[in-house]
Amino acid sequence: MKKKAVVLTSGGLDSTTVAAVAKNEGYELYCLSFNYGQRHLQELESAKRVAEYFGAKKHLIIDIDLKIIGGSALTSDIEVPKHREEKEMITKIPITYVPARNTIFLSYALAFAEVLQSNDLFIGVNAIDYSGYPDCRPEYIEAFEKMANLATKVGVEGITKLKIHAPLQNLSKKGIIELGLSLGVDYSITHSCYDPLPDGTSCGECDSCLLRKHGFEQAGVEDPLHYAK
Amino acid sequence: MKKKAVVLTSGGLDSTTVAAVAKNEGYELYCLSFNYGQRHLQELESAKRVAEYFGAKKHLIIDIDLKIIGGSALTSDIEVPKHREEKEMITKIPITYVPARNTIFLSYALAFAEVLQSNDLFIGVNAIDYSGYPDCRPEYIEAFEKMANLATKVGVEGITKLKIHAPLQNLSKKGIIELGLSLGVDYSITHSCYDPLPDGTSCGECDSCLLRKHGFEQAGVEDPLHYAK
Repeated sequence: MKKKAVVLTSGGLDSTTVAAVAKNEGYELYCLSFNYGQRHLQELESAKRVAEYFGAKKHLIIDIDLKIIGGSALTSDIEVPKHREEKEMITKIPITYVPARNTIFLSYALAFAEVLQSNDLFIGVNAIDYSGYPDCRPEYIEAFEKMANLATKVGVEGITKLKIHAPLQNLSKKGIIELGLSLGVDYSITHSCYDPLPDGTSCGECDSCLLRKHGFEQAGVEDPLHYAK
Repeated sequence: MKKKAVVLTSGGLDSTTVAAVAKNEGYELYCLSFNYGQRHLQELESAKRVAEYFGAKKHLIIDIDLKIIGGSALTSDIEVPKHREEKEMITKIPITYVPARNTIFLSYALAFAEVLQSNDLFIGVNAIDYSGYPDCRPEYIEAFEKMANLATKVGVEGITKLKIHAPLQNLSKKGIIELGLSLGVDYSITHSCYDPLPDGTSCGECDSCLLRKHGFEQAGVEDPLHYAK
């Protein structure tokens, strides 16, 4: 029987690369996505395409209400910042940061893994491009893994150990794209923009678009996405 | 300005006692409850009464879908066990255990706390009566607190430290009831049963009812609740 992996799947470039890594390591994929009051649903459409692309055994989309809690440009009416300098992106916690988002996502992944009897969670956090987000740091992932192993039956019964795989942790965007391409990922199915036009076209100006465009440029590969600017 | 506390409020005896402790320590209460596909909604009705009783500044009820993940008698059609021996309750992980529930609840509490700029989360976990639940153990709470301090802006900016208060951790049910009564709690507003009758009456036979009844007996106080059996 194939080992099962729970893969947090946003439909973006990073989590799609992570799905390719898990697939390549021989796991059977159980994709998990969230409908969390994002401003746009292109993300979920991409997530569905990605789960299908990798032949996921199951794709669970969970409705969660982060809007009710508030506090982020990604789930409220605060404006998404445009044209930020990379230096600023890296050093300042952006207002697109959603409070405790990765913790909530990983908690659901943990529940899903426990029910599936999977010991492997995959997440596309990255400490280089997103160092402004506290919950993307390696020490955070390590602390979550430790907590997770105390939180569940697995931990108590001590049979196996749950592992959080963060294979992009130390890669640049260029490195992530190169990794994905080496595994045959078709990035045209992904979506990265924080603030797409009504027709779904990527804005080309938010942090996420800028980092992506820059990554493709550095990798010397053409980005299959079309941008408004 | 009063310090703000986020209090996980289930409407049960334990979390109600915790709310009383937080109130008594001078916090302004922000209660947080979940509509998580419990079999019965009496729990939420009690939670509302409790929040009101303590004059909570806000009571957030978040819809979360644990049913879609499955794996527990509390969120599915598996039968709730009755008449279990206390020894069995203490040593065996019960099928009423909801995978990663406290982790999911605490993650939302963390997000709420971050938005409120609160550094204090209160939770009614108890290591004595519920030692069968892995996510009630002190080492779990400690690991969550450590993770939480790495997960959020507070952690990065290092200004303050988030604390998870679990004041019932080492109390017996008798001790919890005595603590609550010493703080003037009216336990008639609480609800503990896992499997109430259609009219809301507590069954008197599930783990939760049995532990509660036993606690009141040991405290030598009459339980204000009426039981079917």
